[in-house]
Amino acid sequence: MGRWEPGARERLVLAAVDLFHEQGYDETTVAQIAERAGVTRSTFFRHFPDKRDVLVAGQAALSALLAEGIGATPAGAAPLDAVAEGLRRAAEVYGPMSREIAPRLEAVVSASAELRDRSAQKSVGLAAAMEDALVARGTAPVVARLAAELGVLAHHRAFERWAAEPDAAGGAMARYSIEALDELRAAAASLG
Amino acid sequence: MGRWEPGARERLVLAAVDLFHEQGYDETTVAQIAERAGVTRSTFFRHFPDKRDVLVAGQAALSALLAEGIGATPAGAAPLDAVAEGLRRAAEVYGPMSREIAPRLEAVVSASAELRDRSAQKSVGLAAAMEDALVARGTAPVVARLAAELGVLAHHRAFERWAAEPDAAGGAMARYSIEALDELRAAAASLG
Repeated sequence: MGRWEPGARERLVLAAVDLFHEQGYDETTVAQIAERAGVTRSTFFRHFPDKRDVLVAGQAALSALLAEGIGATPAGAAPLDAVAEGLRRAAEVYGPMSREIAPRLEAVVSASAELRDRSAQKSVGLAAAMEDALVARGTAPVVARLAAELGVLAHHRAFERWAAEPDAAGGAMARYSIEALDELRAAAASLG
Repeated sequence: MGRWEPGARERLVLAAVDLFHEQGYDETTVAQIAERAGVTRSTFFRHFPDKRDVLVAGQAALSALLAEGIGATPAGAAPLDAVAEGLRRAAEVYGPMSREIAPRLEAVVSASAELRDRSAQKSVGLAAAMEDALVARGTAPVVARLAAELGVLAHHRAFERWAAEPDAAGGAMARYSIEALDELRAAAASLG
């Protein structure tokens, strides 16, 4: 069985995270990222509009999976059960690539105000995707908004734990997501 | 009774919002903002590190008031009752200045990816301030995190409504905040 082999897009993400980590985000150019990844600048721009977007590369795929899972939940299901299904599907994208870059990615984002801002806006986008999918299946808007926020919180908490757990199997992110969502569900009962 | 008279800091915020709105965020310089406000560039830099921060000018004050209100709530109070007190105090900063700039500010932030990112990160900061204040008074971390997210949601929903209501009195933001929080509290019971 072969080792995991990244394609051009994955190599660009890995190269960008390495360079941002080694020399800083502001100091890194698109040309350097392309060179490190072994591709041309125009290949870079076929995959990403600018270097900032490399770090939120998975957002569109993630949003689509979250919405798909929520939309596929039976009509009578509770909003958080629909969110759980969204998180389960979204967990599919967390493979060896995510695990490999997680520690450096976290360091890079923490070190840059611009990237912290971008990362916060990514969460807003994920919440909006879930909220829209919930409203589309008939959840009241305010409940949908809240359920979506819980979904984003659960996703982040799960990712932190999954990335920190050295022995987790590649496909185990879904379990962490459901556990985190269950914790938040229990916490919601203690809000007062 | 005199009309509300803005000081240098307020004039800088008003000038910045006007210029961003008229000619775009990227096209506006610190020198132009200072000139429009009738102050020098060095006065600008005494108040703000850069032009991006003009738009989140109130964040530190808001965070401090939220934390102060939460900290002042009696020990036995439910987490969301503490958050309500934080929101009530934070509402004090929403006066004629906020009301005057609200519509243009919203347009400016919507039009710029960088400012949308910055605005999202501002929400993260407000949530962190509430979460820390709740944990400091003994709320379980996961409950504190969730209660803080509800607080931020309530704050945003309240601000949107307050800003859109032409006849609201200057001091009425607190009422909108508490109403929004009560809606979210009710929604939390329908999450499933």
